[in-house]
Amino acid sequence: MESKQKVGVIGIGLIGGSIALGLRESGWASEIIGIDTNPEHQSKALSLRLVDRVMTWENALHEVDIFVTSTPVDVLVSIIPKILDQLKPHQLIIEVGSTKSPVFEALKNHPKRAQFVSTHPMAGTEFSGPEAAVLGLFKNKTCVICDKELSSATAIEIIEDLYTHGLQMQLIYMDSIGHDVHTAYISHISHICSFALANTVLEKEKDEKRIFELASTGFESTVRLAKSSPETWSQIFHQNQENLLDVLDEYINTLLKYKGLMLAGSYDKLKDELSKANDIGRILNNKKGL
Amino acid sequence: MESKQKVGVIGIGLIGGSIALGLRESGWASEIIGIDTNPEHQSKALSLRLVDRVMTWENALHEVDIFVTSTPVDVLVSIIPKILDQLKPHQLIIEVGSTKSPVFEALKNHPKRAQFVSTHPMAGTEFSGPEAAVLGLFKNKTCVICDKELSSATAIEIIEDLYTHGLQMQLIYMDSIGHDVHTAYISHISHICSFALANTVLEKEKDEKRIFELASTGFESTVRLAKSSPETWSQIFHQNQENLLDVLDEYINTLLKYKGLMLAGSYDKLKDELSKANDIGRILNNKKGL
Repeated sequence: MESKQKVGVIGIGLIGGSIALGLRESGWASEIIGIDTNPEHQSKALSLRLVDRVMTWENALHEVDIFVTSTPVDVLVSIIPKILDQLKPHQLIIEVGSTKSPVFEALKNHPKRAQFVSTHPMAGTEFSGPEAAVLGLFKNKTCVICDKELSSATAIEIIEDLYTHGLQMQLIYMDSIGHDVHTAYISHISHICSFALANTVLEKEKDEKRIFELASTGFESTVRLAKSSPETWSQIFHQNQENLLDVLDEYINTLLKYKGLMLAGSYDKLKDELSKANDIGRILNNKKGL
Repeated sequence: MESKQKVGVIGIGLIGGSIALGLRESGWASEIIGIDTNPEHQSKALSLRLVDRVMTWENALHEVDIFVTSTPVDVLVSIIPKILDQLKPHQLIIEVGSTKSPVFEALKNHPKRAQFVSTHPMAGTEFSGPEAAVLGLFKNKTCVICDKELSSATAIEIIEDLYTHGLQMQLIYMDSIGHDVHTAYISHISHICSFALANTVLEKEKDEKRIFELASTGFESTVRLAKSSPETWSQIFHQNQENLLDVLDEYINTLLKYKGLMLAGSYDKLKDELSKANDIGRILNNKKGL
């Protein structure tokens, strides 16, 4: 296996920029080429030293070993087939989006599907753009590799190495459909909760001075994700609509159950529900080895 | 003003214990007497050096200058009138609960109401009990003083000093009704969101291994408050039921609006809603002086 790869990062924002920083720091990449249609992102990526050079993907085709596509999902599904058409046999392309089914559908019949790997490094912050890129974002976090059997064994071996040695991540494996179900439950719905809470509080508290004065760390923690990019997340909600509507219904039903218990004065039963919710703490603490 | 006060803390958990630690560290209190009906809390409070001595409130009456009541709200409303009955003119009692109207009602006709101050130091963590007490919990946070005009000028002066010099907090002033409306919007609803999200995810993800593997920092941030005490929070929801049901309805309506936009495929409109939610970031950053 080549240990030094020339990597082309398409879309140099929070995720793409952080991958670039990580792969350079670990020495996994010999050079990082930045590809972004936004001229501001291009110049910021260069001035922040996220990438070594900037070019179009067409020009990068002559140089890079691996393309890492970290654009919004609607761009991914249109650009990856075009790039895949042009790849030489030794070249690979991966994507790092938050939903998998649209890419699965877009590529399932592509003759060079084996040169593509579908991945989801599960890390992020509420910020976006090249300035948001941080070294170490992915370290010790989980990366999902989807539909492993649709990629060549060599491609999987190289990309597993990228994530484990290049970015110090742990790997798990799922199919695209399972990925989208589980991320709806565990990641996407959190964003809906948080955005909706922020909308609710802003609506109720027209006097923002009160929010300013009374916001505690608990409130800040719950609305943190509401600072996330509306472009990115409205798209993710769109792409994973079916699973999200399913979990959103369950969430609304849980809230209606709480409301019913409150109206009935059944606070002992409500306490039982809150005790069940406490169990999330045990599961997350296990994760941290506490 | 006396600068060294002997303080009796009734209920030595997260909040009472952290107040004890803060008042000793700043030198504001000359001695801290712990009062708690739970023998385990008594011995932990002593072994963790949260308090100097432990006794009943009846015995503490002969010694302390100020009682700080940090029990659950149902205990507060029964115990404070009894203690107030017995207070000598120079003694004071305060409470630090999360809802104010029940205490306001319980004390409004008490002949010694002027020796009582209603306060809400707005800080906390998702943990509870004496082990959860931390030094510095309140530093630079906001404390609400309620119904200032119902307490004597001397009482207010001493308690303002306790919070500003003893615990390094900033003060704001409200009446009890306003307090309960605003905390429902900004603090209590966050807990409902978080508890309900944990219930939803635990219900949907019967296989807890997936939660374990996929939980990102965003998810953890949103469900953090779901680790909070079911006893404390079911009571707060009860005490502030009317305001909470009001904001809970608004929250459910916001989620139903999101759902409607998703079902209609109106993702541009959904994006506009998410952009509005982003404004919470500006308000919270202003708070931090960013």
